[in-house]
Amino acid sequence: MNLSHIEHLGIAVKSLEQAIPYYEKVLGLKCYNIEEVADQKVKTAFFKIGQTKLELLEPTADDSPIAKFIEKRGEGIHHLAFAVEDGVAAALAECEGHGIQLIDKAPRKGAEGLHIAFLHPKSTQGVLTELCEDPSKK
Amino acid sequence: MNLSHIEHLGIAVKSLEQAIPYYEKVLGLKCYNIEEVADQKVKTAFFKIGQTKLELLEPTADDSPIAKFIEKRGEGIHHLAFAVEDGVAAALAECEGHGIQLIDKAPRKGAEGLHIAFLHPKSTQGVLTELCEDPSKK
Repeated sequence: MNLSHIEHLGIAVKSLEQAIPYYEKVLGLKCYNIEEVADQKVKTAFFKIGQTKLELLEPTADDSPIAKFIEKRGEGIHHLAFAVEDGVAAALAECEGHGIQLIDKAPRKGAEGLHIAFLHPKSTQGVLTELCEDPSKK
Repeated sequence: MNLSHIEHLGIAVKSLEQAIPYYEKVLGLKCYNIEEVADQKVKTAFFKIGQTKLELLEPTADDSPIAKFIEKRGEGIHHLAFAVEDGVAAALAECEGHGIQLIDKAPRKGAEGLHIAFLHPKSTQGVLTELCEDPSKK
């Protein structure tokens, strides 16, 4: 697999309203977008630092995957997303060949128009791992 | 504060021997260094992806902070480290001015010769946060 950089880090927070001032006023980053992803039941705030985005994820319903994560483990880093060079479908096939358990068998659409797929943390030492490609950069 | 990029991500693993093949064979990254940090009771394996390093952390004793983390939460992402532009001491003073709880009141030496300090996850929505500077780049 050919990974170019960390595309983003997903960070589960209880409240964007409480978290954004820390990222803006203390860390000096700028929130450039807030987007609701209805099918994931989250509201997301985006920041950029170097090559990487930070995505704060606030649950919008009690049965949101992020609500369950916070209930079980508390707020904190939820997932790690790599930018793949040769396409998500090829990367998934490669992972499957290595016996990695996939959450998504095929790429699907994520926030900001990316093509994404998740690997299961059982196969990745507990790190929920996302593979991303930006189809506009092809 | 002026952050340039994500310097590294610390990832707690039970065994470097089991984890390194995933990062090398599946993700295609290269382990370029293995270093034991005696006072933290960890053995660390380093990979580079874009601007960022991944540091796998294996506990070397039952009372290692990483052993306790794994016992409580399982393997996974342990901390997020930002590269600061204007020095760690100045960044800590700024954090304190914003009421952020500090783990380290002053910079100390970390792996690879960096000057580092940690912020308390109580003040950072559950993300154990490290500030780093590379004194050789001044």
